[in-house]
Amino acid sequence: MAKKINLRPLDDRVVVHPLEAEEMTAGGIVLPDAAREKPQRGKVVAVGVGKLLDSGNRGELSVAVGDEVIYGKYGGSEVEVDGDEYKILRESDILAKVTA
Amino acid sequence: MAKKINLRPLDDRVVVHPLEAEEMTAGGIVLPDAAREKPQRGKVVAVGVGKLLDSGNRGELSVAVGDEVIYGKYGGSEVEVDGDEYKILRESDILAKVTA
Amino acid sequence: MAKKINLRPLDDRVVVHPLEAEEMTAGGIVLPDAAREKPQRGKVVAVGVGKLLDSGNRGELSVAVGDEVIYGKYGGSEVEVDGDEYKILRESDILAKVTA
Amino acid sequence: MAKKINLRPLDDRVVVHPLEAEEMTAGGIVLPDAAREKPQRGKVVAVGVGKLLDSGNRGELSVAVGDEVIYGKYGGSEVEVDGDEYKILRESDILAKVTA
Amino acid sequence: MAKKINLRPLDDRVVVHPLEAEEMTAGGIVLPDAAREKPQRGKVVAVGVGKLLDSGNRGELSVAVGDEVIYGKYGGSEVEVDGDEYKILRESDILAKVTA
Amino acid sequence: MAKKINLRPLDDRVVVHPLEAEEMTAGGIVLPDAAREKPQRGKVVAVGVGKLLDSGNRGELSVAVGDEVIYGKYGGSEVEVDGDEYKILRESDILAKVTA
Amino acid sequence: MAKKINLRPLDDRVVVHPLEAEEMTAGGIVLPDAAREKPQRGKVVAVGVGKLLDSGNRGELSVAVGDEVIYGKYGGSEVEVDGDEYKILRESDILAKVTA
Repeated sequence: MAKKINLRPLDDRVVVHPLEAEEMTAGGIVLPDAAREKPQRGKVVAVGVGKLLDSGNRGELSVAVGDEVIYGKYGGSEVEVDGDEYKILRESDILAKVTA
Repeated sequence: MAKKINLRPLDDRVVVHPLEAEEMTAGGIVLPDAAREKPQRGKVVAVGVGKLLDSGNRGELSVAVGDEVIYGKYGGSEVEVDGDEYKILRESDILAKVTA
Repeated sequence: MAKKINLRPLDDRVVVHPLEAEEMTAGGIVLPDAAREKPQRGKVVAVGVGKLLDSGNRGELSVAVGDEVIYGKYGGSEVEVDGDEYKILRESDILAKVTA
Repeated sequence: MAKKINLRPLDDRVVVHPLEAEEMTAGGIVLPDAAREKPQRGKVVAVGVGKLLDSGNRGELSVAVGDEVIYGKYGGSEVEVDGDEYKILRESDILAKVTA
Repeated sequence: MAKKINLRPLDDRVVVHPLEAEEMTAGGIVLPDAAREKPQRGKVVAVGVGKLLDSGNRGELSVAVGDEVIYGKYGGSEVEVDGDEYKILRESDILAKVTA
Repeated sequence: MAKKINLRPLDDRVVVHPLEAEEMTAGGIVLPDAAREKPQRGKVVAVGVGKLLDSGNRGELSVAVGDEVIYGKYGGSEVEVDGDEYKILRESDILAKVTA
Repeated sequence: MAKKINLRPLDDRVVVHPLEAEEMTAGGIVLPDAAREKPQRGKVVAVGVGKLLDSGNRGELSVAVGDEVIYGKYGGSEVEVDGDEYKILRESDILAKVTA
């Protein structure tokens, strides 16, 4: 389960909690093990305010806290909070949301 | 046949189900085997909301669920759902739609 | 002769049917064989709707179905339809139109 | 503790004072030691006026003096003031704010 | 002498007919033989409609048919028409016009 | 001391006179000697009119003649005037102003 | 002395006549001989109409015929006119004007 986390990512970044196989709510999606750049599944636990556009506005994010997402394994930076591993990614590293 | 899939790709990404030769509906198109970067055929099973433009709007996608498309083999990321292989691509990796 | 083809290229892409020397309608143009990146001649058989601009509009294409064009040999992707070789190119890979 | 510092960074740059483990106010966040590009924690001690946009305006910064932030270890430039090490970073090198 | 040529270059491209030393109308300009990327002189024989700008308009070309120009030797593509060598260049590969 | 210099840098460039340690007015800032890309301190002796923006206006510079600045050692070009070394930098190579 | 030259550079390019040490009018500026990319001094003998902006306008040049300028040695292209060496540069390769 994703816990409340005391991190607020900047711009279009999101904090994702990687899911173990047994935690995945939408059955049937398996991520191939042998792929060169394996996508991973995780739950979004924090989101930024959106990317600063040339107009001076912020682009709205397409993902929200609680969403399950698939993202490229090698993007982003890992941080550890209370013994759990998290990933700070840009939204553009997220490939898709998993819908119920 | 393309099934309903519980993935909603972000931005201008689409989820494509690669077609086997016997599934191709528009006869006569053969993709050369020896080409350096072989394009492939597949059916679109999910589409994103479009790329975020500098204006803050989303660019409308040119492909829709059900379209048959030709795309570069090495673009995108592979995921496996219920034992089937899918590809998550950006629309810009799609070369053409196959029309009936 | 260029046939009707069941491909609709995306964005600013065009489908080109490479011409053999004997098919060239505008006499006298010979493309040098020894050049490092040899341009080639072909006939446009399908065109896209134009490139998505930042304004959200599509840029109008400068080539139309039936045009004879010169294009860089190594750009684009090859596909085979009914035993004929075609090339899917971006318009920016087309150098010039051959006028009558 | 972060001291007042006589540096005013340009554009979207910020000056950060790296924190030692014992100084971290939000308990529980540990940054993995073995990561390839280890993010670090620090306190913002000075901020610039924002990046110059094409419109001629400045983009507002998302961090303020006093914020605790996580940033990539290898970004930015190190300076030493009164015997303390500081880092001058672009805001885009900051991954997240640590909230109380 | 530059002949009429049945090529209409796209966008901001121009077709140039390289000049031999004896054809140069503005005396005295010699292009050094030993330079790493030797500029060359030629006469413009066809011009495109201009580059597509983000606004959807075309940027006006600064060269016209009949202009003598200096251009980088290694830019562009060579084509042969009626036994003469021509070069298809982008306008940005043209360094200067030679004035009378 | 920075002297009047007969150079007017273009666009967003500035001319900086590197400071020796004994000349630094704001005490206590020491730039680490062993850093891979050591920032340096200097005094601004001339500034350009600002970068040309897409709008056709010039972006206002954030530094002025007389400012003490910290800049990356390896950016810019060195010139020698009346036996003194100067550096011509783009404003983006300047990290921070040193305030009194 | 810079002579009248029959070249009209395109866009934001300028033609510069490199100066020999004895020709430099503003005394005291010496360009270091050992620098990795040595800037050079020269006199502007021709200027273009300015760079084409996205707005469709031309950016005004900051240098004029007769200006003495400092520029990077390895930028631009060399041409020879009436036995004199000239350089065709983009304005962005010019670092500064030398003022009287």
